[in-house]
Parts: sequence; C-alpha cells; structure tokens
Amino acid sequence: MKPNEGRSRVVIEQIEPSVDAGRYPAKRILGDNVRVTAAIFADGHDHIAARLLYRHSSKKQWQAAPFVATTNDMWSAQFPVDMLGEWRFTIEAWIDHFDTWVADLAKRLAAQQDGTQDIPLALRIGANHLDAAAARAKGTDAEALKLAARSLHSLAEQSLAEYLMPISAETIALVASYPDLSFATKYPVELPLWVDRERARFSSWYELFPRSASEMPGQHGTLCDVAARVPEIAAMGFDVLYMPPIHPIGVAYRKGKNNAVRAEAGDVGSPWAIGAAEGGHTAILPELGTFTDFHALVSVAKANNIDIALDIAFQCSPDHPWVTEHPAWFNHRPDGSIQYAENPPKKYQDIYPLNFESADWRGLWDALYGVFKFWSDRGVRVFRVDNPHTKALPFWEWCIAEVLKSAPDTIFLAEAFTRPHVMYSLAKAGFTQGYTYFTWRTGKAELQEYFTEIANPPVRDFFRPNVWPNTPDILHAQFQVEPLAERRAVFQQRVILAATLSANYGIYGPAYELLEGRPAKPAPGKTGSEEYLDSEKYQLRAWNRNDPNSIAPLITQLNRIRRENLSLQRNENLVFHTVPNDNMLVYSKTTADGSNAVLVVVNLDPKAEQSGWLDLNLAALGLPWQGWFDVEDLLTGVVYHWKDQWNFVSLKPEVTAHIFRIMR
Amino acid sequence: MKPNEGRSRVVIEQIEPSVDAGRYPAKRILGDNVRVTAAIFADGHDHIAARLLYRHSSKKQWQAAPFVATTNDMWSAQFPVDMLGEWRFTIEAWIDHFDTWVADLAKRLAAQQDGTQDIPLALRIGANHLDAAAARAKGTDAEALKLAARSLHSLAEQSLAEYLMPISAETIALVASYPDLSFATKYPVELPLWVDRERARFSSWYELFPRSASEMPGQHGTLCDVAARVPEIAAMGFDVLYMPPIHPIGVAYRKGKNNAVRAEAGDVGSPWAIGAAEGGHTAILPELGTFTDFHALVSVAKANNIDIALDIAFQCSPDHPWVTEHPAWFNHRPDGSIQYAENPPKKYQDIYPLNFESADWRGLWDALYGVFKFWSDRGVRVFRVDNPHTKALPFWEWCIAEVLKSAPDTIFLAEAFTRPHVMYSLAKAGFTQGYTYFTWRTGKAELQEYFTEIANPPVRDFFRPNVWPNTPDILHAQFQVEPLAERRAVFQQRVILAATLSANYGIYGPAYELLEGRPAKPAPGKTGSEEYLDSEKYQLRAWNRNDPNSIAPLITQLNRIRRENLSLQRNENLVFHTVPNDNMLVYSKTTADGSNAVLVVVNLDPKAEQSGWLDLNLAALGLPWQGWFDVEDLLTGVVYHWKDQWNFVSLKPEVTAHIFRIMR
Repeated sequence: MKPNEGRSRVVIEQIEPSVDAGRYPAKRILGDNVRVTAAIFADGHDHIAARLLYRHSSKKQWQAAPFVATTNDMWSAQFPVDMLGEWRFTIEAWIDHFDTWVADLAKRLAAQQDGTQDIPLALRIGANHLDAAAARAKGTDAEALKLAARSLHSLAEQSLAEYLMPISAETIALVASYPDLSFATKYPVELPLWVDRERARFSSWYELFPRSASEMPGQHGTLCDVAARVPEIAAMGFDVLYMPPIHPIGVAYRKGKNNAVRAEAGDVGSPWAIGAAEGGHTAILPELGTFTDFHALVSVAKANNIDIALDIAFQCSPDHPWVTEHPAWFNHRPDGSIQYAENPPKKYQDIYPLNFESADWRGLWDALYGVFKFWSDRGVRVFRVDNPHTKALPFWEWCIAEVLKSAPDTIFLAEAFTRPHVMYSLAKAGFTQGYTYFTWRTGKAELQEYFTEIANPPVRDFFRPNVWPNTPDILHAQFQVEPLAERRAVFQQRVILAATLSANYGIYGPAYELLEGRPAKPAPGKTGSEEYLDSEKYQLRAWNRNDPNSIAPLITQLNRIRRENLSLQRNENLVFHTVPNDNMLVYSKTTADGSNAVLVVVNLDPKAEQSGWLDLNLAALGLPWQGWFDVEDLLTGVVYHWKDQWNFVSLKPEVTAHIFRIMR
Repeated sequence: MKPNEGRSRVVIEQIEPSVDAGRYPAKRILGDNVRVTAAIFADGHDHIAARLLYRHSSKKQWQAAPFVATTNDMWSAQFPVDMLGEWRFTIEAWIDHFDTWVADLAKRLAAQQDGTQDIPLALRIGANHLDAAAARAKGTDAEALKLAARSLHSLAEQSLAEYLMPISAETIALVASYPDLSFATKYPVELPLWVDRERARFSSWYELFPRSASEMPGQHGTLCDVAARVPEIAAMGFDVLYMPPIHPIGVAYRKGKNNAVRAEAGDVGSPWAIGAAEGGHTAILPELGTFTDFHALVSVAKANNIDIALDIAFQCSPDHPWVTEHPAWFNHRPDGSIQYAENPPKKYQDIYPLNFESADWRGLWDALYGVFKFWSDRGVRVFRVDNPHTKALPFWEWCIAEVLKSAPDTIFLAEAFTRPHVMYSLAKAGFTQGYTYFTWRTGKAELQEYFTEIANPPVRDFFRPNVWPNTPDILHAQFQVEPLAERRAVFQQRVILAATLSANYGIYGPAYELLEGRPAKPAPGKTGSEEYLDSEKYQLRAWNRNDPNSIAPLITQLNRIRRENLSLQRNENLVFHTVPNDNMLVYSKTTADGSNAVLVVVNLDPKAEQSGWLDLNLAALGLPWQGWFDVEDLLTGVVYHWKDQWNFVSLKPEVTAHIFRIMR
C-alpha cells in the first residue's frame, strides 16, 4: 500500500541519544545543552535541511533548533534543558530546493564563460523559489522575499556579459526561516529524555548508622546525634548523608551480634528487618527519636547543602503491620504459614519478601509508592533502594515515575549488585544512579574495561554509576590486610579511584576513614567473608574519630578537589592513558571547553613503589601535540614542568597517587 | 498509570536479528535455520522459560520453538524457514515456578541431613504446581500430572529418614509443555524477516552487451546471438546473465562513439537513453529482436540454470512516450522546457530524470511498478536497477514489496555507488543485493576493513554485497597497466578476490576475461578516466573470445570451486588471518558444521613474488590448535602437508593465489 505522502524523500535514522529506540528515556542534567545526532539523507544530490523539535512534556508547543551537517550524512543539533522532568524530541527534515538552487547557481556562474549556461533561465527558477517562500512568509518578510524575486526576474531580462551572485546571505537566511515543509519527513517516534538535578550526576555520599552516632560509647545513637554530626560531614565535603533503615525493627527471629541466629537480650537487631508493633516503613524506631527529630535533621542537613538519603528496603519482619493487615501481599505455603526469604538450603526467617505476583498487586504497588510519597512529603529527596533487583521491574518503572510526578528532583540509587542486564534494566526503569562492580574491580585491566563500558554510549545515556569502595555488606578482601601502612595504602587508593573515576561515589563510614578491615571470619585468600566483624548491621559501634590514622583529611581533600575541578563532576570525559606498568592506572577528565583538565596517576600496589613513563594522550588533555606544560599535584601543591607526551612518574605506596591539574 | 498486568515480571531485550528495531526485515535464505538471540531476565532468582513465536506472514497461526539460556541472561532459539517471503517472529517469556521449585528441591534434598529442611512441606508445594499444570493440560497428560501430584502428596505424608528426588525428567518435560502463561511477557514488536531463494545469497553474474554478441564483426548483435552464447556462459559457471537496457534508444541528443556530444550517422547510442518512437521501458529495441526472441532467450537460459537479469533504468530519452503522455512526471522549467539531467555545469541533454515530487506521484509509481510487473510476467526474476539512489527511497520500499507479492523469488540488485547510508538504506528498503566499494578497495587494510564491516552484524542482516572488479562504467586505474603479464596478474587477482571474498560477484565481459584495460583518456596516476576506450556504452565491439591470453579458463575454475565448496557460498563465515606482509591477503570461509573450509592466500602485488609465514586462526578452520593437516590447492591440485598455526607461503605474481581446501 502506498504511503499517504510518497514525496517525503528524506530518511532519518540512528538518532542519538536514544535508549532502546525510545522505549526508555536518555538521561541528562538541568542546564545541559543536549546534543542530538542523526543520519539524515535522501536520494540524489538535492540539499537537505533538518530541525530538531523539542519540548518539556508539560508543554504542548514544540521548540525548534537547526541541524548542521557534520560528515557522511550525519547531522547534529543542540537544545538546552531548563526544566526538570521529562522532555521529548524528534526530528523533521526536508529537501531544500532553494539551497540546492543557490549552490547550483554558484557553479553555473563560475562556468558562465563557456557560453552554454542559460543564466537567465536559472534566475527565473530562483525567482519562483523566492515567490513561493514569500507566500509562506508573513508581513515585511514576505515583502522582502517578493522584492528579491522581482529583482531576479528583472536581472533575467538583462543580457549581461557576466552575472554576479545575486542572492545575499540575508536572503538565504530569510528563505530558510520559511521552509517548505509540504513533503517534510517527520521521525515517527518522539524520543524521551529525562532531566535530573545536578546532584544526580555529581554527588558524594556518606553512609552512617544512626545507632552508632552517639558520642557516648554503648549508648544507642539518635537522629539528634546524627544532626549534631552534620556540620562535620559537610566539612568533609559530602553532600548526601545516607542512613540505613530507621524504622522499627522486628522482634521475631531477630538476629544477634555478628549475625547470630538467636539474639540476646539487649541486641538491637538488623535495621533491614523492618516492622514491629510500633509500625512499618512509615514509622521511626523509637530509640532513634521522633518525627520532630527527623525534621530537625532534614533541616540542618539542608542548611549544610546535604541531602538526607533514606534506605528503602521493601521487605517485612514477621512483626510488620502489613503481615496481618495485608496477608495477600505475601506468599503462603500449603501449611498456611507465610513464606520467609530463602536461598535453599539457607533460610532468612526474620524476613518476609513481598509477593509481586499477589492478586492484590495493585494494592501492594500503591502501598509501596505510598512509602516513598510519605518520606517525600517529609522533605526526603534521595532514596537508596535496597535490593531493587528482587522486586518486579514493571513496578519500579511505574513507582519511580509516580514519585517523580510530584517531586522531579528526587534521586533514586539502586543497590543492585547483580547481573549486568538486570542492573542496566533498573537504570532504564528509572533509577537515577546505580551501585557498580567497582567494589570488586581491583586490577588495572578490569578497571579500564569496566569504566570504559560505563562512561560511553549506550550505557552512559541511561546508567549513572555510583561507586563505593565499601558498604556495610562488603568489606573486600583487599582491605583485610596488615600491617597498618599497607592497609592505609589500600584505603587511600580505593577512595582516590572512586572519587576521581566516577562523579558519583560514596563510602560507608566511619568504618572507611578509620581503616576498619576486620572480617567476620578470617579470610584466607579470596574465599573469605566480606562481612565486617562486629558489624553495625547487628550491633552498636563506638568509633574513635580522633584516631590519628584516620584518612578523613585525605577524603576532605578529595571532595574539595572534586568541587573545585568541573572535569571531575562528570564521566563521559573519562580517558585512559598508557603507561607500561600494570600497577599504575592513568586517566584524565577534561571539560568540554578545555578549561579544566585533571590527570590522575594511581599506584595500584600498596606494597611497593611503582614508576613508569606516561604516554599521554595530549589531545584528550586539551594540549598541543608537543611543547612544555605545567602540572600541579592538587594533593601536595607541587608543580611539575613537563614536555610532550612522554613523562616519568614514580609513586611510593604511601603516596598512592598524583591528582594533577593541567595548568594553562 | 499502572499497566494492565503488573505481574508480568520478565523483561525481553536486545533481540537479534533485528534491523532498526524491526522497522525493516532482516534477510535470510530458504532452508535457513534462523537463530534468534535475546536478553531475557527478571527480578530475583526465579527460573525463566521462553519461547520463540514465528510464522510466515501468510499464516495466522504462530509456531513455537523453545529458547535455551546461553550465558549472562542471553538466550537462543532457532526456527526453519521453508517458504519464500515475509516471516514474523516475536518472543514470549515467563517465570517458571515449577522449574524453580525443582531446582530448590534438589538443594533441599542435598541438605536434608542438617535436619532443618521441611521436605514434606516442599513436596506439598510441588504437588500444587503439578495440580495447576494438570488443570492446564489435556487428556492423558492431565491424568499423568494429577497422578504425579498425588504421588508427591502421599510421599509428603510419610516421614522418611531420607528423601530421593521424586520428580522424573519426563514429568518435568510434561509440565514444561503446559506452561503457565498467565503473567507471560510478550515482546511488543513482531520482528519481520524476509526469506529469499538461494541465488540471493550465492550468485555469479556475467554482464554482456547484446549489441556486441554477434559472431560477425560490425553486425548489430541480437537476443538470438545472446541465446546462442548461453551454453558457453553456463559452461563458464555463471548463473545470472545480465544485459544493459534492451529498450529502444532515443534519437534526440544521442551520444556518439566515446561519448561524443554529437552522434554520427550509424551510431547506436547509449542503451540508457531509454525510449523512442518504438516505445519505452516495455519495448525491445528492434535491432535486438522481438518478444519471441526474448522468450526464447529466457527459455534457453532457464534450461542452463541461468537467470536473465534485466537492467531497469528509470530515466527517459526526450523521445520516450512518457514525455508526451505524462508530462506531469517530469520537471518543467519556467520556459516550458523539460529539465534534463544536470550536474552543473555539466549537462546530460539526452536524459530526462523523473520527478518523484510530481503531483501525479501515484501515477508515476504505478507506471514504474508496471515496468517490473511487465517483465516479471515475461519470466524475468532478476533485476539490476540502475542508479536507484537517485529515485525516492519510499518508492523503492513500496515498489519492491509490490513486485515480491506476486513473485517472491525476484532478486533486485542495486547499482548504487554512493554514500554508505544511502547504499544501506536501499538494502533496508528491499534491494536483495547491492553493488559495493570493492571496485576501489585494492589495499590489504582497506579490503580487510570493508569486508569485516559487510560480513558482520548489523550490516550483514540487511545488506548482501555483490562485488564487481569492473563494470561498463568503471575501469579502475589498476587495470590500466602494461605489460600484459602485469595486467593479467591484476585481472586474475581481482576476480579471485571477488569470487572468494563474496558469495555474490560479477564481471563485465568479455572485457574482463580478455583483459581490456584501455581507458578513454590516458590515466596518469589515479586522476585519469575510469571510462573504457571505445566503450560498448556507445558503440558495438567485436571481441576475440579465442584470444590465448583470455583468463576465461581461470574464471571457469573459480566458478567450479565456488559451486563445489559450500563455505564459499556465504559471507558471515569470513575470517581474516594474519601474515606479516602487506602485499598478502589471507582469509578463510568455513561451513557452520566444519565440513568444508577454504583458505585463500592472495598476492596483491602484480609485479613481484611475495611470501610470508601465515599465522593461521586454526579454530576458524575447524582444526585443533596443533597438529599436522593437509591442504589442497584447488587451482593446481597440489597438496601441502602443514603443521600447527605457522606455515610458509610464497606466491609468484603470475600465480596470484592459492585457494586451499582444508583436507580432513
């Protein structure tokens, strides 16, 4: 069957950014100038024109931006995004007969001396184009175009020995502003784009257990204790303060210290065993304080430019009110009991998973959304979601979109340490940021490979990494070392990598800065436990933040460097440089305008000095291909005078890294 | 807004083959077993099952094939295509709770001695699954499933010291054949797939000008002369015989010999200046013969397993009947004249292009389709289309689909030597095969790069290369050399490359086998003319096919080798091997079952002997990573005894190449 309009000759293909052909939105940040590229072409040799149509989805009217040709039928256009939320864009392209005519006329004029070029006829064709444009134009523009047409006609009447180009750049621009869209091709899909606030791209997270926040050893910490610590955390340079679940903790099957199957009297249990007589996901554990305390914490955080991040873990202790109020949301066994969490033969009887195949899935979805809405209404704009990969993906796509409707500045971090497709699918479904495999990528080759994957299309258009050297669940074997000097070198190395490889990073403290490396079980080789000994997941801890071995000063310095160097606040500019040493990792980030470039050289070996000749990609640093330049080590303030691409670096293990700023 | 069914937890992504997310069909061949891969996954750890649904588009009923998991959430399924034309496929996937239960039960049984596993409860859960499957099943299957459920129940009643796995492989298979699709995810797109006959993938084309087919020098050749030559062409091993346009040739502005602007008396003109008083695209030039002669030619060709390919050039001489009958199909200038073809300042006054922006575009499309239909009705099943890239792409998509409706065994070859996007777009729009850049790819690196691109996804799923060392329009500078020995080496090299790199290839003969290398204008360096001197495009030629320098015997041998070695009849199996010599190209093709493997070693230097140690990719040849093996040179019959990956080859320029068959 013939199409409605067979004269739409232009083809539009390969639009970027697009995620799964427009099934999911690409992600950008407020204030970005979004660059859109596409293959746009037609049969033959006629000139083409194209424009980008874009709008915030709350508006009906499209705005337009012109495409310019780059190379080999590829075109590029840009549009600024000045509102949070969903945008849409698409492309319209058409044959530009006037522009074709102008180019042909120039060739005819250049060849007019051969005597075979009928210039007057060509001028009359041009006059017809101008008259047609005048008919599409309005007011004075129409008059100007009519005048230009008449001028061509009268020129065509004259028999000149030599004709000069009779069309001005102004006339060409005027015609272009009244394009003939009769046979324009409109791309059939409106591609979605989601715009987040800046913290979605650039954030520094500090995780702490409120229960351990008391200055009095042995005393249960409170939200007020946390509030008291906020200025110190802000001074360290963090802008997200994330707390494990603050809800009432179940009593049934409560776990004891070090994950003991049976709790002893006074054991505080796991914050992830959510729900007790006092309430569930919308209640606060009484030991932590009241809603008044919570609001005070959110306020002091806000005053310090810090977001409070809550941990949303959709699972229930057997004491959670939902267990009795909504039995349909749980899976029941033939004996009538509720199915607890299992990974046969292991059992987690203190946890009831929610059943996403419940007949009342709509009610369940509403309730889970209600949890986000509840805390959103109380000023929370950052949620770290526990194990989202064990909840149905269609639920997340719906729920996150619902939350963002009323609070488009909300950030969701997916705590999904699972297979790549599932992690990426959560990002596509709406999670703003995601945990990564960084925690287990320790070698040079695997770090380069992984960060190359996540810093480039297609992944970077939908997945924003948030990298953590440690979490309460993961004390990597690398950290479980003695002597102290070596352990400190590892802790330094990993936080430097996290803070400079990725614009979003976080640490679980104070365990991190205090170099906590004791595993729950001795870990010979790589087969040991990644659990902490005396984990805060099951007990209070008292941390000596005045420990002289604390690397808090280094972390403070890193966060300052991140704030002061715009290039470190994004990922798509990550470039690895070559050095013939498998224990040295070299990479840089440079702003698009070249005004800020940071080069990081890391010694991956905590035991020995490593050195090598860097083979710098000077273009990636915005430097000419040869010549002298200065680099300043932002950690020490020392300035080095370098030349051309080859430069020598040596790093003692206790120094760990140089973070060079390229000086101009 | 919530989806209609929120419990469909499985996600389906990254389906291959798919061309532009299903906008265009992927291409396969009758008898192929089409392998479909996809990422299929869900939240959590439940097992998944998936099936491929496929059907010929003429049938309503879907057929199903099971998916099997490969690695990292990727799955694979296959379906056979036993009908020409359009097929459709999609994917359905679901959580397989029974399979999950079986796996969990196995783990519980393995751990039952720890005393904490409630096996009877697990058995009762399994019995419920079996009862549910019985409810979905029919007849004796339902009975068998009910029986299995009862057996589990009764086992659960017993209190055993040790339980054995109570579920047989047969029961598991039986449950799998009645899947619970209540919450299945169905991929929202039906992906199209086009199935061609085998010649679309594997063909050997011979192009000749019928006007030069007479055995009498100076006499205008006829279709009868061509028919007389068919057995010889078949004996050379060709299966497509392609003739430039056979229609009446215009008189107005007729070109003379060697493209002279003015024809002299007796000049025959260009076959591409189509149309005269005798008729247009559906008429035959009287000098060539009658429709009776044409039918005789088609018949003798068919008897020799040869397809006659017509050249469809949609353009008109000023004398074409359409010029007066359908003036609306042409572009008119302000002086009332019809716009001839131009590339300012050049003019082609003997050619009127058709105007695809005509107000009567529907009438034009119908007429152009009518040309294909006319010749299709007269038994033609192969069309070489001249300059399709100067006709609107939406037209081709419609027209080719229309032709294929009544003749799905039709092959369209696009003669588009233009930019990559346009060439690929023609293939997506429906062209079965396309001309390539091979004609200008002469160096080792560029040959490897180009053939790697077109032999791999995504290109190979929609674009089938047909490679030509020469055409009547293109005598590459490489061929314009003396002495004869060197010229012969080049002609040998290029036809060997064409015939073994690509399953579809063709030559313009007898110019090719007779080593015609004289350019229209002397070509110093690379800036000269690619036109032939005394080109058949403008005059008759008498060819001495008995020239002892003819390389027809080599070409005959190549075509025989191609027929006898299945691996050479496809492209997706092309693998380049390493040799440290820039004048040697080494590549192989191996059938999927490993039964046929051909290794080609080409000396790219027509002037000197070249040698080197081949570094063979033995796995690609279906050989073990070490050991002795024999290779037979199919050009000479000589057998070589080789060992492991490193083997030495030396090629004199007059030998040009080895085409080795790996012997088993």
